[in-house]
Amino acid sequence: MADLIFRTVYGLILTIIHTIYAFYTSVRSTYNITRLRIASILNYHHRTPANIRKDVALLKKLPDHVAVILESKGKKEGGVEKLIDEVADLSCWCASVGVATLTVYQKTGMLKNYETPAHRAVSERLHTYFGSTRPTFRITSPHSPNAPSLPPNGDAVHDEEEVDLEINFVAQDDGRESIVDFTRALSDLAQGGKFNSEDVSVDLIDQEMKASVMGEPDLLILFTPRVFLQGFPPWQIRLTEIFHLEDNEGVSYTVFLKALHKFAGAEMRWGR
Amino acid sequence: MADLIFRTVYGLILTIIHTIYAFYTSVRSTYNITRLRIASILNYHHRTPANIRKDVALLKKLPDHVAVILESKGKKEGGVEKLIDEVADLSCWCASVGVATLTVYQKTGMLKNYETPAHRAVSERLHTYFGSTRPTFRITSPHSPNAPSLPPNGDAVHDEEEVDLEINFVAQDDGRESIVDFTRALSDLAQGGKFNSEDVSVDLIDQEMKASVMGEPDLLILFTPRVFLQGFPPWQIRLTEIFHLEDNEGVSYTVFLKALHKFAGAEMRWGR
Repeated sequence: MADLIFRTVYGLILTIIHTIYAFYTSVRSTYNITRLRIASILNYHHRTPANIRKDVALLKKLPDHVAVILESKGKKEGGVEKLIDEVADLSCWCASVGVATLTVYQKTGMLKNYETPAHRAVSERLHTYFGSTRPTFRITSPHSPNAPSLPPNGDAVHDEEEVDLEINFVAQDDGRESIVDFTRALSDLAQGGKFNSEDVSVDLIDQEMKASVMGEPDLLILFTPRVFLQGFPPWQIRLTEIFHLEDNEGVSYTVFLKALHKFAGAEMRWGR
Repeated sequence: MADLIFRTVYGLILTIIHTIYAFYTSVRSTYNITRLRIASILNYHHRTPANIRKDVALLKKLPDHVAVILESKGKKEGGVEKLIDEVADLSCWCASVGVATLTVYQKTGMLKNYETPAHRAVSERLHTYFGSTRPTFRITSPHSPNAPSLPPNGDAVHDEEEVDLEINFVAQDDGRESIVDFTRALSDLAQGGKFNSEDVSVDLIDQEMKASVMGEPDLLILFTPRVFLQGFPPWQIRLTEIFHLEDNEGVSYTVFLKALHKFAGAEMRWGR
């Protein structure tokens, strides 16, 4: 009899715990999404750099180089226009907090064919944020030194000039392939006797990767619910903090801000 | 007057929302940790492989190669004994669900000096799980082909034999350094005219990395609250799903199980 009571009570407790968990699981996703939406309203920056700077004012450190992975968009989701729109937003947020380099990884490299429209979009978006005193920027991509990085509206920036924000379009080909290319080039040099194999070092590859593709980002933001690097250049992410948010899908200012906070080692409060 | 009422109501609503959020943030961490603890009790496998198999029975796919990043332990946290204990647990869980390769990344490579004690610990732990019909296994590490992989208790496994579980100890040196080593070796060959630079390809480096360090893991489990790769071999994680859990610190069966569920694309329910 005592055993029966024990079993019943035990079973009851288990059922209660299970119910709470099932409830939690189903509510969590809805909750997280709603929270992000409300936070977006609370944190809205009104396209004012001062507001964005205020949002990060208390952070102890900020990344110098931010990388993001953007999803390829189908026609339904807005295609390449949507991608360019996301790049324009990210550029403005980065420029506002003082990030010097923004690397945009997009697997197929679709963006690289749209450097000119992207340049125009970023330039216009920066104007709505900063007015006439907008920061200077440059769009580059590895393996396309001759790409038209000069904008059509005349505010051309020369390759040697210092700019406030360097935007770098990177694709799958710039990952493993770039290591292969470099290895091939070194072998060629060695074959011609112009190079000694003992000179190969981590530093040498580091320098080459930095020059030909990009340096090491401090922070990599994924706007996807899963952590999956999709062929992102592997050499460069040794010391990178990778940020993603459960249940999040899509680029938003709140996710960007949360990533900066996590990077600084700070918990976001007040719905941020 | 209407404006004043509006402002008051607006302020009130903001305050309420903020309070809810602050409450959420402070409760979340405690909640997550408690949840993990309760889940650990609910999911406890009693060191029985059949229980572990039951936990993953409904999953559509399982990883063939699992990698984990373990934290270096100070003396206070149990030192290398604690690390070996974690390796023994992980090996048993992997063997139970049929994972063929377990890669254990530990930054400093401390584990590599303890292959023999690790072998003994894994062997004993497998015995408590499986009894006398325990699976065969082998411990290897890159760049130490002469390490004593023969256990002292006699159940030696020869290098060529097929084993049920391959355990691979990997450290920081096996990451970028291995790419440098390979590049150097190729340059040497090219210099001697034994090799043509055009033969360098992604496949060639892939094969070499697989042979000298490890293949590509399907799933990488981090037992840390932040996503930070700590110098994990970069070449091999292009297609790897990376799993981590917010607020989690330390190796536990529940986190392992959650990772497998996420990998299979399934949501865990009932507190798992």
